[in-house]
Amino acid sequence: MNQPLSVNMQAQVLTAALPYIQKYTGKIVVIKYGGNAMINPELKKAVMSDIVLLALTGIRVVLVHGGGPEISQMLGKLGIESKFIGGLRYTDADTAQVVQMVLAGKTNKDLVSLIGVCGGHALGLCGIDGGMIQVRKLAGEQDLGFVGDITKIDTRPIDNALENGYIPVIATVGVDENGQVYNINADTAAAEIAAALGAENIITLTDIRGLMRDVKDENSLIPAVRLDQVQALVDQGIISGGMIPKVKSCARAVQCGVKKAVMIDGRIAHSILIEMFSDEGIGTMFTK
Amino acid sequence: MNQPLSVNMQAQVLTAALPYIQKYTGKIVVIKYGGNAMINPELKKAVMSDIVLLALTGIRVVLVHGGGPEISQMLGKLGIESKFIGGLRYTDADTAQVVQMVLAGKTNKDLVSLIGVCGGHALGLCGIDGGMIQVRKLAGEQDLGFVGDITKIDTRPIDNALENGYIPVIATVGVDENGQVYNINADTAAAEIAAALGAENIITLTDIRGLMRDVKDENSLIPAVRLDQVQALVDQGIISGGMIPKVKSCARAVQCGVKKAVMIDGRIAHSILIEMFSDEGIGTMFTK
Amino acid sequence: MNQPLSVNMQAQVLTAALPYIQKYTGKIVVIKYGGNAMINPELKKAVMSDIVLLALTGIRVVLVHGGGPEISQMLGKLGIESKFIGGLRYTDADTAQVVQMVLAGKTNKDLVSLIGVCGGHALGLCGIDGGMIQVRKLAGEQDLGFVGDITKIDTRPIDNALENGYIPVIATVGVDENGQVYNINADTAAAEIAAALGAENIITLTDIRGLMRDVKDENSLIPAVRLDQVQALVDQGIISGGMIPKVKSCARAVQCGVKKAVMIDGRIAHSILIEMFSDEGIGTMFTK
Amino acid sequence: MNQPLSVNMQAQVLTAALPYIQKYTGKIVVIKYGGNAMINPELKKAVMSDIVLLALTGIRVVLVHGGGPEISQMLGKLGIESKFIGGLRYTDADTAQVVQMVLAGKTNKDLVSLIGVCGGHALGLCGIDGGMIQVRKLAGEQDLGFVGDITKIDTRPIDNALENGYIPVIATVGVDENGQVYNINADTAAAEIAAALGAENIITLTDIRGLMRDVKDENSLIPAVRLDQVQALVDQGIISGGMIPKVKSCARAVQCGVKKAVMIDGRIAHSILIEMFSDEGIGTMFTK
Amino acid sequence: MNQPLSVNMQAQVLTAALPYIQKYTGKIVVIKYGGNAMINPELKKAVMSDIVLLALTGIRVVLVHGGGPEISQMLGKLGIESKFIGGLRYTDADTAQVVQMVLAGKTNKDLVSLIGVCGGHALGLCGIDGGMIQVRKLAGEQDLGFVGDITKIDTRPIDNALENGYIPVIATVGVDENGQVYNINADTAAAEIAAALGAENIITLTDIRGLMRDVKDENSLIPAVRLDQVQALVDQGIISGGMIPKVKSCARAVQCGVKKAVMIDGRIAHSILIEMFSDEGIGTMFTK
Amino acid sequence: MNQPLSVNMQAQVLTAALPYIQKYTGKIVVIKYGGNAMINPELKKAVMSDIVLLALTGIRVVLVHGGGPEISQMLGKLGIESKFIGGLRYTDADTAQVVQMVLAGKTNKDLVSLIGVCGGHALGLCGIDGGMIQVRKLAGEQDLGFVGDITKIDTRPIDNALENGYIPVIATVGVDENGQVYNINADTAAAEIAAALGAENIITLTDIRGLMRDVKDENSLIPAVRLDQVQALVDQGIISGGMIPKVKSCARAVQCGVKKAVMIDGRIAHSILIEMFSDEGIGTMFTK
Repeated sequence: MNQPLSVNMQAQVLTAALPYIQKYTGKIVVIKYGGNAMINPELKKAVMSDIVLLALTGIRVVLVHGGGPEISQMLGKLGIESKFIGGLRYTDADTAQVVQMVLAGKTNKDLVSLIGVCGGHALGLCGIDGGMIQVRKLAGEQDLGFVGDITKIDTRPIDNALENGYIPVIATVGVDENGQVYNINADTAAAEIAAALGAENIITLTDIRGLMRDVKDENSLIPAVRLDQVQALVDQGIISGGMIPKVKSCARAVQCGVKKAVMIDGRIAHSILIEMFSDEGIGTMFTK
Repeated sequence: MNQPLSVNMQAQVLTAALPYIQKYTGKIVVIKYGGNAMINPELKKAVMSDIVLLALTGIRVVLVHGGGPEISQMLGKLGIESKFIGGLRYTDADTAQVVQMVLAGKTNKDLVSLIGVCGGHALGLCGIDGGMIQVRKLAGEQDLGFVGDITKIDTRPIDNALENGYIPVIATVGVDENGQVYNINADTAAAEIAAALGAENIITLTDIRGLMRDVKDENSLIPAVRLDQVQALVDQGIISGGMIPKVKSCARAVQCGVKKAVMIDGRIAHSILIEMFSDEGIGTMFTK
Repeated sequence: MNQPLSVNMQAQVLTAALPYIQKYTGKIVVIKYGGNAMINPELKKAVMSDIVLLALTGIRVVLVHGGGPEISQMLGKLGIESKFIGGLRYTDADTAQVVQMVLAGKTNKDLVSLIGVCGGHALGLCGIDGGMIQVRKLAGEQDLGFVGDITKIDTRPIDNALENGYIPVIATVGVDENGQVYNINADTAAAEIAAALGAENIITLTDIRGLMRDVKDENSLIPAVRLDQVQALVDQGIISGGMIPKVKSCARAVQCGVKKAVMIDGRIAHSILIEMFSDEGIGTMFTK
Repeated sequence: MNQPLSVNMQAQVLTAALPYIQKYTGKIVVIKYGGNAMINPELKKAVMSDIVLLALTGIRVVLVHGGGPEISQMLGKLGIESKFIGGLRYTDADTAQVVQMVLAGKTNKDLVSLIGVCGGHALGLCGIDGGMIQVRKLAGEQDLGFVGDITKIDTRPIDNALENGYIPVIATVGVDENGQVYNINADTAAAEIAAALGAENIITLTDIRGLMRDVKDENSLIPAVRLDQVQALVDQGIISGGMIPKVKSCARAVQCGVKKAVMIDGRIAHSILIEMFSDEGIGTMFTK
Repeated sequence: MNQPLSVNMQAQVLTAALPYIQKYTGKIVVIKYGGNAMINPELKKAVMSDIVLLALTGIRVVLVHGGGPEISQMLGKLGIESKFIGGLRYTDADTAQVVQMVLAGKTNKDLVSLIGVCGGHALGLCGIDGGMIQVRKLAGEQDLGFVGDITKIDTRPIDNALENGYIPVIATVGVDENGQVYNINADTAAAEIAAALGAENIITLTDIRGLMRDVKDENSLIPAVRLDQVQALVDQGIISGGMIPKVKSCARAVQCGVKKAVMIDGRIAHSILIEMFSDEGIGTMFTK
Repeated sequence: MNQPLSVNMQAQVLTAALPYIQKYTGKIVVIKYGGNAMINPELKKAVMSDIVLLALTGIRVVLVHGGGPEISQMLGKLGIESKFIGGLRYTDADTAQVVQMVLAGKTNKDLVSLIGVCGGHALGLCGIDGGMIQVRKLAGEQDLGFVGDITKIDTRPIDNALENGYIPVIATVGVDENGQVYNINADTAAAEIAAALGAENIITLTDIRGLMRDVKDENSLIPAVRLDQVQALVDQGIISGGMIPKVKSCARAVQCGVKKAVMIDGRIAHSILIEMFSDEGIGTMFTK
C-alpha cells in the first residue's frame, strides 16, 4: 500500500467485503486466465494472490489457462515454423507435442508453484489427466491438423482436487480415444469446464476493458449483455474479430446454466477481487 | 466508509489480509464478549459482523458471553434485591433463575438473531444444553449461594454446531448433576471452553486498552506478557482488582494449551478484525 | 408402583410393548407439550421420562413447547399490561421480548435440564436459532402487533440435533428477516415442524380427554376423526372455541403428510407411553 | 398376561425400566443360549422376544448357541455311534460333519427365523464364515478327535452384522487353516467372543438357578462371585462337575475385560429381561 | 500346469486377460453353482479358485447354490421317503427341514470353508438370514407341499457382505412370513437374486455344453440366443425337459435387466475364467 | 501370443497368479520407471499395460519416472550447453526450466495418455503439485546449481489420487520454499516416495539383469542382497559406478520400512508381471 491506511479503515474495507463473500462461499467460480495478466510478473502474482484469497473465503476456484506467448516462443526456439490457414494456426504433430509440453509442463506448473508461494495449495492438471478433456478432430472446411473439438468433460479430477482442498489449475489440451493430444481453444475449454461443473460464475481475464461500443473509447463500455442481445451486437459489428470466440464462450457457459460470465480487464491489478467483492463490477457481464 | 476508497485500494486491503487469514483458517478461536461492546448497538453489530467474516474465512469461531447489565436491570425490575458478601454478589435460587432466563433467553438469542441479520448462521446454547457446562457449588469461606465452579466441559454440542456450519453462541450458566442451575464467571467459562476445545486463540473484549502499567496512561500499555511474568505483575500491583480474574482466565487458557490469549479494547469498532488481520496487534497478549 | 409387581409380570409388560416399539423405531414423533402437564411438577417429570424412554427405543422425538402460564406471570411481575383485541392478546415490542426471554430462557432450558435429570440428552433451541422458524407479521383485520405467521421451517438445526443423538426441545418464537422476534401459536408451530420434518406422528398434550361430543361427558369421546369429517364437526359445534385452532393444527399436519395426529390428555401420567405403546389409544386421533 | 394390568400400571413398568435401558444402550451384550430354554418352544420364543426387545433399546446383542440335544438326536438317527473317552465325546470326521450341519444349518437358522417372526432382523453365522472362529486340535492326554481349541476370533463378520442393524446369531463350530471343521465348547466360544468384542456383559442361560452352595437348595444361591473367590469355591467342591467349564468361561470373559458375566436360569420365562431391566438380578454374577 | 510355460508366456496370458478384467471390475456377477462341478472335488476347488480370482480383480461375485445330491443322500440316510407328484418331489415338513439343514449347514458352509482355503473371504447365508428370500406356497394344480414361490428378495445382507469385502455364498431356501421354511428352485432363486442386485451377468454351471440343437452332438451348440428366439426354440423342441426351467431362469434375469445370462459346462475346469476372461465364450449366452 | 495357447492353459496361468495377487492386493507398490523400457515404444506399452493390470487386481501402484534422454534431446535442440562438474551435470536456471517442462509436460503426460489407451485412469503430477516434493539446494564440494536434496514428501496428492481410483504418475522435479524448481535424482525420489507412502515394494526398472558379480556375465546375477551385505559388495567393487546411487536408493527405501526393493531388467517385456506374479523373481532383491 502506498499511503498507509489506518487499521480502522482496513477493518471497514474487510467488513464491506462481507456480503460479497457470503454470496459466493461454497460456489464454484472458474477463472479463465490469459493475456497480459499472464505475462507481467506483478500482475501474475496479483492474480494468484486473488485466487488464494477467494479459495480461503470458501469459494471453490478453478483456474483454467492457455499458453500465452510461451508456446510461440518455444516453437520459435525449436525452429518449428507456424503455418496459417485462413488466419488460423495449423497444428501438426510436432506442434501439438510442443503445445502439450509447454502448457502442461511449463505454464501450468509455474502457476502451481506461484500459488504455493502465495500460500495456497494447487494441483496442476491438463486435459489428458484422467481423460478429463475428451476431443475429436475439429471438423471444418479447412484442415487445421490436431485442433480439437471438445466432446466430453470428465469433471472427476477437478471435483477430487476441490474436495481435497486443492485449487485445480488446468492446462487446456485435449486427448482423443487413441491418446492423441490436440490443441484446443482455451476460452472454449474454460466455458465447457464451467458448464460441466455447474459453476456459479466464469470470469475471463482479457486485455481490454470489456465489450465496448467503440473499441477506441473506454467510456463506451457495455456493462451487461443478455444472451438475446448477442446476435444484434454481432450484426452491428460491435462484437467482431477476436471478440467473437470470447463472447461465444461466455454465451455458451451461460446457456448451459452458469449464472454469470464476466469479461474483465486483466491489466488492472486485483481486477478479480474488484469484480467479485464490490458492486462496481468492472468489464462486461453476460447473463441469461 | 466516510471518504470513499478506490476499489484498487480496497483490493490491496483485502490482499494484505491474506496471510492472516491463512494463518487462522480451520483453527478454533473463542471470543469472550462483554462490556461496552455488548451495550452500544453499533459496536454490537460491528462485533457480530466481524465474527461472521471470520467464520466465512474458515475460522471456527465460538462466541461466549456473559450477561452484561441486562441481568442487573431485570433483577431490578423484578424487585429482587442484590445481596453482596465481601464485594461479591450472592446468588439465591430466584436470582439464579433470572440469570438463566436473561442470559439464555434474552442476551443469547439477541446475539443469534443479530448474527443472522449480518448473514451468518448461529445456534444459541447455554451450559444446560447437552449438560455442556457441568459445575458444583463454589467452595470458599463465604457462601455465595448458587455460584458454580466448573468441573467439566462437554464440547460435543459445540463441536456439532461447528461441524454443521453454525457459529455456536454460548450463555455462561452451569448445571449440576441434579439439574440445578448456577451462575458462573463468564471469563472463567470462556477460558475453560477454549481449553477444552483446544482453541488456537481466545480473545477477550474489555473496556480498557489492555493491561497498562499506569491505568490512567494508555501509552503505558503492556503489549505482551509471558505466563512466568504474571506473578511479578500482580506483586507490583499492575494486575489488580477486576483485572485479576480476567488475567487469571487468560493464563489458565494458555496453561491448558491455547496458543494465545488476547485482551482487547471492545470500545474500538472492529477491534477483533484489527487484532486478527493485521500486525498491529492491539491490547495485551498472553503466551507461554 | 403402589403394589409391587412380580418381575415376571414386569417382563410381560415389557414384552407386550415390543410390537409398538418396533412400529416406531427410527421414525420421527413430534410432541406438542402444554397445559397442565407443563405446570404440575410430577406430570412434568413423567412426560420428560416418557420422552427419554421413547428416545432410547430409537424413536426420534422432537419436543415442541409453548410457554404455559410462565409468560403471563412474568408480564405481570414486570407490570406490562396485557391489551386484548377481539379476545386475542396484542403483542407489543416489550411483550415480544418477554415472550422470547421466558420461552427460550426459562421454560425451554428448564425442560432441557429436566430431561438431563431423567438421563436423556437434550438441546434447547428456539425459532431464532439458525433462522429455524421464519415468520412474517400475521395479516388480519385486527393488528395484533408482533404475532407471526410461519413462512418457512429450516429443519437443519433439528436434524443435526437428532443425528448427534440429542432430543431437540423447541421454544416457539419466530423471527423475520430483520431479526425481529414474534410470538407464534405453539400448536401451529408444532404442526408446521412435524410437517417439515416428515414426522410419523404428532402428539398434542391437552387438558381434556380429547374431542368430545359433549364436553361435559367424558364418555362422549370421539376416538378417531378423518380429515373429511372435520368440517361437519365444526358445523355441528362439536369442534368449537379453543378446540378450533388445535384441531386445525392437527389437520394441517396430517394434510402435509404426517400419518397420525393425536390429541391426548396430559393430565394422565405417562399418557404418551399409553398412547404409543398400547392398543388402548387414548384421546382423539386425526388421520387422512 | 393372566390378569389384565391397567395401562397406567403398564406405563409405570416401562418407566421403571428406563434407567436400566440407559445403562446398556450402545453396549455389546453376548447371550450364551443353551439348555432347556432351547428345547421348550415357549421359552425359546420368550428368549428371542427378549433379544429383539434388547436390540430395539439400542443394545448390541450377540446370540451365541451350541446345539442342545439336536446333534445327539441326529447322530442317533444317522446311526453314528458316540464313543466316549474319559467321559468326553470323541469327535470323528463324520461326527464333526454332523455337528456342523445341525448347528449351522438347523439350530442356527431356526433361531434366525424365530427372531424374524418376533419382528427382529438376524444373520446366522458360524465359525467358518469369514474364518471367524479359528482353532487348532485340542491338545491333551486323550485324543478327542476333531475337538478344537480356539486360537483367534475374527470379529469382523459380527461387527459388520451389528453395524448393519442385524442381530448376529453364531453357531459354535471352528475351522483350522486347512478348512477342517471342529467341534468346540459353546460356553468357551461365547466367552472368547465376548472378550474379543469387548462386550459389556455376557449372560449364560442354564438349567439351574445359578451357583448354589447346596445344589439341592435353591435358597443357597450365591448371587455374586469375585474372580479371586473362584478357586476357593472349587476347593470347597461348590463349583464342581459340569459347573467347572461354565464358571471357567465366565471367569475367562471377566479376566479379558468383560465387566460382568452372569449365569441365569433359562427355565424362567424372560429371565434375560429380568436380569437386565431390574435390580432383582437373578442367578450368579461374576465380576473382577 | 503339465508342461511348464515360460514366464514370458505367462505374462502374455495375464496381459491378454486385461481387457476382460477391465470390463467387469466393479460389476456384480452371480454364479449359479450346481451339477457335476459341485460333486467332483477337483472341479469344486477349481470353481472356488476362479471365484476368488474374480473377486480379487474387483468383480463383486455372488455365489448361489442348490444342494446337489447331498440332500437326497441325507434323506436316504434318514429314511425319509421321497414322494413324487407328476415327476416333481413333494416336500413335506420333515423334508423341508432336511433341505434347510443340508443346504445351509453342510453344502453352504463347505463352500465357505473351501473359499477360505483358496485364500478368499466368504460369508455363508441362506434365504432365512435377514429374511432375504421371502416366499409363499407355490400355487399350482398339484400340491407340492413346502415348495416356495419367491415374492421378494431383500438384497441388504448380500450388499453388506460385498461392501465389507466378503463373497456372499447363498443357500437357496426361502421363508414365509410365519417363519416356515420352503424348498425353492435354485436356478429360479439365482435369477431373482441377479435381477434384484442389478447384476451385470449371471453364469449358470451345468452338466452339458450349453443349449444344443441335437443333445447328442456337441457341435450343434447354440452360442447365443436372444429373448425373442426362446419361444421358437421351445416350440421346436430344442429347449425341452430339464432345460426349460434353466432357460426360463436365464430369460427372466435378462428380462429384469441383467445384461447377459450364460449357461456353461461345469465339467470343464476353470470354465468360469474361460467364459469371463477370453473371447472364446463357451456355452450358450442369453441376451436381450 | 505367437502360438495360440489353449483356453484351458490360459485359465491355468491365471489361476497360478492367484496367490501372488492375494499377497499384494491393497498394498502400495512404487515402480521406478527409466532406461530402455522408457524409450522402446513396445516395451513402454508393455510396462503401462502391466501397471493397469496390477491396479485392477487391487494393488495401489504409484509410477515414478525421470526423463530419460528426452531432456538431453530438448536441451540439445534449444542449444543449451551441458556443463559437467566432476562428471555430474550442472543445472543452471535455464536447464532447470527445461527439465521441469520436459519431465512434467512431455514424459509425464505421455505416460498418463498411454495408461489411458491401456484402459487405465492416471493422474500426472510432479513435485511442484501440492508442494509434494520439497527440496533444498544439494550441499557438496561442488556447486551443481539447481540440483535438489529432498527434505520432505507430502504424500497427500498421491494418497488422494489412489483413493479416487487413479494411478498417480509422478515426474521427479522438486520445489523449494521460494517456488524455485530443482532437478532431482529420480531413483532417490522414488525411494523417498516409497518410504513416505509406507509402500510394500519398490521395483526399479533398469537396463541390466540386476546386480552381477561380473558385469559381463549374466549368469553371475546376485538374486538377493541383505542390507548388511551392501557395504562389502561396494568394497569388493561389485557395486560400483552408476550402480551405487541405484543400490543406495533401494537400501534407503528398505531402511525406511519398505519390505522389498527389487531392481529388474526393463528390457524384458512384462518383467514387472514376472517379478510380481511368479516365484521366478528376476533381478536383484534388497531386503532387511
